[in-house]
This record gives sequence, C-alpha cells and structure tokens, in this order.
Amino acid sequence: MLHTAAHHDGVVDRVAIEEPLEIRVGGAALAVTMRTPGHDEELAVGFLVSEGLIAAGFVSTGPPADLAANIVEVEVELVRTPDARRFYATSSCGICGKGALEEVAVLAAPLPPVADGPRVQRALLAGLPERLVQPGFAATGGLHATGLFTGDGEALLVREDVGRHNAMDKVIGRRALDGALPLHGLVLCVSGRLSFELVQKAVVAGAPVLVGAGAPTSLAIALAAERRLTLAGFARGSRVNLYTGAERVMG
Amino acid sequence: MLHTAAHHDGVVDRVAIEEPLEIRVGGAALAVTMRTPGHDEELAVGFLVSEGLIAAGFVSTGPPADLAANIVEVEVELVRTPDARRFYATSSCGICGKGALEEVAVLAAPLPPVADGPRVQRALLAGLPERLVQPGFAATGGLHATGLFTGDGEALLVREDVGRHNAMDKVIGRRALDGALPLHGLVLCVSGRLSFELVQKAVVAGAPVLVGAGAPTSLAIALAAERRLTLAGFARGSRVNLYTGAERVMG
Repeated sequence: MLHTAAHHDGVVDRVAIEEPLEIRVGGAALAVTMRTPGHDEELAVGFLVSEGLIAAGFVSTGPPADLAANIVEVEVELVRTPDARRFYATSSCGICGKGALEEVAVLAAPLPPVADGPRVQRALLAGLPERLVQPGFAATGGLHATGLFTGDGEALLVREDVGRHNAMDKVIGRRALDGALPLHGLVLCVSGRLSFELVQKAVVAGAPVLVGAGAPTSLAIALAAERRLTLAGFARGSRVNLYTGAERVMG
Repeated sequence: MLHTAAHHDGVVDRVAIEEPLEIRVGGAALAVTMRTPGHDEELAVGFLVSEGLIAAGFVSTGPPADLAANIVEVEVELVRTPDARRFYATSSCGICGKGALEEVAVLAAPLPPVADGPRVQRALLAGLPERLVQPGFAATGGLHATGLFTGDGEALLVREDVGRHNAMDKVIGRRALDGALPLHGLVLCVSGRLSFELVQKAVVAGAPVLVGAGAPTSLAIALAAERRLTLAGFARGSRVNLYTGAERVMG
C-alpha cells in the first residue's frame, strides 16, 4: 500500500502514505520512524543492521506486523546500546554526530579490497536509476527508491518509501532476513541525493558501489573515500559523475 | 559557506557541505543534526522553537558558534524535556511518533481563524518556488531551501541547507531571534516535498500557508487539514495543487 487518495481542487489524486512505525526489540520501543507502510519487518531489521545495533544473520521477527497498529517486533540480541543523543537528529541526512567518521569506522566491517569488488561499466552505472521500477513514484511523485543490482545491471530487489533511508533499510533488511549479507560484489542505487547516512548504511551492509541520481554531500564523499566505496552521483541518461573508487568502473 | 570543491573524473566541482552540529542547552548536548554550516544560531533556535522545546521570545545564544568545532550553545529554559524515544527516528521525514497528530495538537498554538489569514493569489503561490534564490543549489544541485514571503509575494528571508528541515528551522530561528514570531499572515515556501514534519514546523511557528514544489504525503495533508493550514504542492510555473485551506486562495 504505497499511496492513498487525496483531493485537491475537486480532483482525486494519489499521494504517498506516510505513517509512524514503532520498532520494538525485546518488547521495548527502540525507535519510531515515519515510513510508507509495507515491508515493515524488512525496514525494522534493516534499520537495526545498518545502524550497527545487531549482527546480521541472527534475526527473527515476531508475528506479522500489525499495519494498523504501526508496530513491528523484532526478536534479537542487541550488540550495543543505542546512544540516545546520537539519534536525536533533525536533518533528512539523519543520524550522525561528532566524530561520525570515527564511529562508522568502528561499526562497519572492512570493505573488501578493491580487487574483490565488481568491475562495472560506466554506461551501466549511468543508467541504473532509470531501471528502478517506481510504481509509487509514478503515481504520487512522492516516494524514494533504493535498488540492489548485480555488477551486470540485473535488478535483485527494489523498495520504495517516503524516507530515502527507509527505502535502503528495507533492501538491507530483506537481505538480512534471507541470510544474504554482506552485499559484496553488488551495487546499491538510489533515486535521489547521496547523504552521509546513505553512504554509512551502504558501507555497513558491505556494498562496494553506491550510485544515485542526485548530488552527493561533502561528508558523503569523505566517508566513501575513507572506506574505499565507489561513489557515483548525478547518474542520468548516459552521464554519471565518479567521486571515489573509480578503480571499479570501466569505460 | 554552502559548498566546497570536490573532484570527479579529473573535474573540480562544487558539492554541498554536510557536517554535524551539536546543539547545547545549558551546557548539555541536546541534539546533533547534519547540516550545512552557516546560520547555526538560527538553526539551533529554530529547532528548539519548532520542536516545542522552548517558547519563542526568550532566547539568547552564547558566543558566536565555532564553525570549526561544530557546536552551538543556546541560553534558554526548556519548557519540557525532550522524549529521547520520540527523537530516535530514521526517516528523512524526521521527527514523529505514535499519536503524532495528538502531540502536535498539544504543542502548537492554535492557528488564527481562516478570516485572519492572508488571501493569496493562486498564480502567486504557483510561482513562489521559483522566487527562492538558491545560489547553493545552483552551484551544487544538493541543497534544499525554505523562504518566508508576504501574502503579496515579497521575499522576507531565504535559507538553504542539505537538510530540508534545517532550512525551515533556520528561517523560524531567525524570526525567533528577531522577536518576530508567530508567522501570522505569512507564507512559507519550500523547494521540495511536503512531509508531515514540515507541516508540523509551519503550524508550530504559526504560518497559515505552506507551499512546496514537490508532493505532499498523506500525513502532511491530514495534519494540515486538522490545523486549518493552507497546504499547496507541485507548485511549478503557473500550476499548483491545493490540498487544504483553499479559503485563503483566490483566483
């Protein structure tokens, strides 16, 4: 359920659904996020993994999420206690803090050496955002998407959400539930801008390549460079800008 | 300082700066947000006001923010204690929780009756996003903007940031520091999509009209309807969709 009816000027139109989801671990409320309903277990698990709160591979969710109640329960052992101050964040870039680069270095598993990453055709990278099937966006103009692709451009998974970070968390969560993390050898593609937090999530999930249709921020580039992620932005049509990790890109 | 140099493919380009800012009240760290440096006092004060943590009009900031240290100190009495769980949020829509509509009803001052609001020409609303002067976006493609306008379309204030909520907080904070809240009779305009949280901030600041270049979410429309805010989206060229509060719009 990606969208609902709205009225403007006597016209019935479709708008993206935005509702709060409470994520519980061991019965205790851990987080509340504004999200588009659907794939809630994936979102909860992906959030816990990409924030470094749990180790991938030891996750089960409770009974199917009650969409009406907007609560999802995850049965898991936390590997660390979340720092409330760290998460008291306001920007669309979300979660960070002083020493963010240092913190992610602690949380994130080392990326594979460059030689182990995929070698991706530049033209393929440039065209990936167009391959994000976005039924929700087409209907509402209000949803972000994240896709997971092979190095050959095969789409493995696409998720949509009003929150760009949620869309990526849903992809990471799906893979965690399938026991298919880390994302070595694969490419993450987002429909919008490239913030620090999206790079952080990609790094923690082990993806060597992240490409987006929009602009990267300064800190996104800094983190990608430090962690040897291949970061590409403004991917549109046949053009794409390569900011870091050009070793993985051919053509 | 909105942007910095980045290199891609041997080309030097400009990218939006994203850095963490720690907001302190009474010496204690209250929040960390990823923001574009500049107008940090405005951002801190606007955040505290629009989150309902302080009353407008009794604010002073400490010594000028140390941009290098990424810390701003605000001298103020909190009117309530922030709920850490509420702020442990992941989405670009930011801050919310279960019963969000109920909570904002507590925080927000009642909007003025419709008759007191401005009457705005529809064509003027449609064209407002184009009047947002966005030197940062033009340079980087990576910044959001919020502008404050009179009902006649005069621009009073424009701020930019990598975080859409930060741009609006900077505008609200500037007005708070000037003793110029609430925003009765004025129009807020944003460069992007209309999330629940942006409507919440506009309502708390007392603005009767919010218009954006992008799509609204379902919860943004619901809150605007409940609080009698005029909400307009997809404002481009001569067209704009009116979702709520059409009484304030002529033509």
